[in-house]
Amino acid sequence: MTVILKLGGSVVTEKDQPETVADDRLADLATAVADSDVSDLVVVHGGGSFGHPHAAEHCVSSTDGTRDPEAVRDIAAAMETLNRAVVGALADAGIPAVPVHPFSTGFRDTDGDLHLPTDQVAAMLDEGFVPVLHGDVLTTAGQGATIVSGDDLVSALATALAADRVGLCSTVPGVLDADGDVVPEITAFEDAADALGESDATDVTGGMAAKVRALLDLGSPAFVFGPDALDAFLAGDDAGTRIRG
Amino acid sequence: MTVILKLGGSVVTEKDQPETVADDRLADLATAVADSDVSDLVVVHGGGSFGHPHAAEHCVSSTDGTRDPEAVRDIAAAMETLNRAVVGALADAGIPAVPVHPFSTGFRDTDGDLHLPTDQVAAMLDEGFVPVLHGDVLTTAGQGATIVSGDDLVSALATALAADRVGLCSTVPGVLDADGDVVPEITAFEDAADALGESDATDVTGGMAAKVRALLDLGSPAFVFGPDALDAFLAGDDAGTRIRG
Repeated sequence: MTVILKLGGSVVTEKDQPETVADDRLADLATAVADSDVSDLVVVHGGGSFGHPHAAEHCVSSTDGTRDPEAVRDIAAAMETLNRAVVGALADAGIPAVPVHPFSTGFRDTDGDLHLPTDQVAAMLDEGFVPVLHGDVLTTAGQGATIVSGDDLVSALATALAADRVGLCSTVPGVLDADGDVVPEITAFEDAADALGESDATDVTGGMAAKVRALLDLGSPAFVFGPDALDAFLAGDDAGTRIRG
Repeated sequence: MTVILKLGGSVVTEKDQPETVADDRLADLATAVADSDVSDLVVVHGGGSFGHPHAAEHCVSSTDGTRDPEAVRDIAAAMETLNRAVVGALADAGIPAVPVHPFSTGFRDTDGDLHLPTDQVAAMLDEGFVPVLHGDVLTTAGQGATIVSGDDLVSALATALAADRVGLCSTVPGVLDADGDVVPEITAFEDAADALGESDATDVTGGMAAKVRALLDLGSPAFVFGPDALDAFLAGDDAGTRIRG
């Protein structure tokens, strides 16, 4: 049973305070993971208040590159620091977490396609480790370096590792409809288009519409849920919104 | 012109002082690199007083693995810290250095063979960055994790990137003969067997005999030299001992 768990940047950090780890929330999430029976788990976390301010400062995004090595170093260093905090919190709960930095292994080609080696991740799972990846800066052919989001990594990992389940733990309890209620299931984008709204539908940088589109394309069932539902997701139960294309 | 430069662990750290960077020596080496005309440069550094004490404490070597995730985290974290200092020193000299952590990308298979993706390193070179790798802990099938030496990485990189020149900058001025003089050229192991001595010949963990054997197997000319000869090596001149199998 291979599970990919994304912990949103706004879940693991205090989004409004620069470079501040959400220690208590992270400890609770780590306890939920430690209490579960998931055998092969890959964790991916977002950048939150570590990655985003540095990316914005250097004007680099998933589509706008930078050739400034200082920008690369700043973003990579900030994300290594956050990753060490997330790995440390998981370790404190008894999880055999180990760090994996996407900048060290992946790149984008001239078509913008993500190349992410995963044989090392599979080897870590086989040896009983829990690899912990993160949104990062990434070398990009013809552009220097761009940003790779945690969501991009989740899609690549889920496909390459043939994940059984994918979970996106966010600050919201699921995909919400116009009334603010959780949509229980999405099997086609049209099901959710109204709920996701016009403005979200054009957001390609990580908004909920983009997440839903990407999750519909996976071969694995995916769930979008809040921190309170992490234990249900890890137990194999439905949590938040179930998305299956 | 692709050049692989290894900076020995005893060059970039004070070997006898735990986790101490050799700041002045590192700054001098960085200046020599900045003053050179090398276009495509990959730097690899050893562990020195950062990696080795942690590896010894956890009883892990290139052949003896560990399944303890804390050992993996300790060694990886110590090497990330040293790498940040080396990348920082190169950056201070104006070199577009960026960090590459081998644990994040490579692994050893059940035969003990090293798998090290290098497409991302090639992409970094194409984009004008100077990737800086380091000896590290490495996931190893059937053994948890073992140590990968900087020398192992140099061999893998030189072959994969078809390097034009390989340089090992060490604390000694070259391969020394029985009189302590630098052997100018080695084209077969027998040439150096006497100089390397009986005890060295059985050292497979990074002694000079092992280095020479590995460098003889490369397709690229290699040089073993001391810090004073780094500028000569980077200028394309002979430096220390020239090794070509």
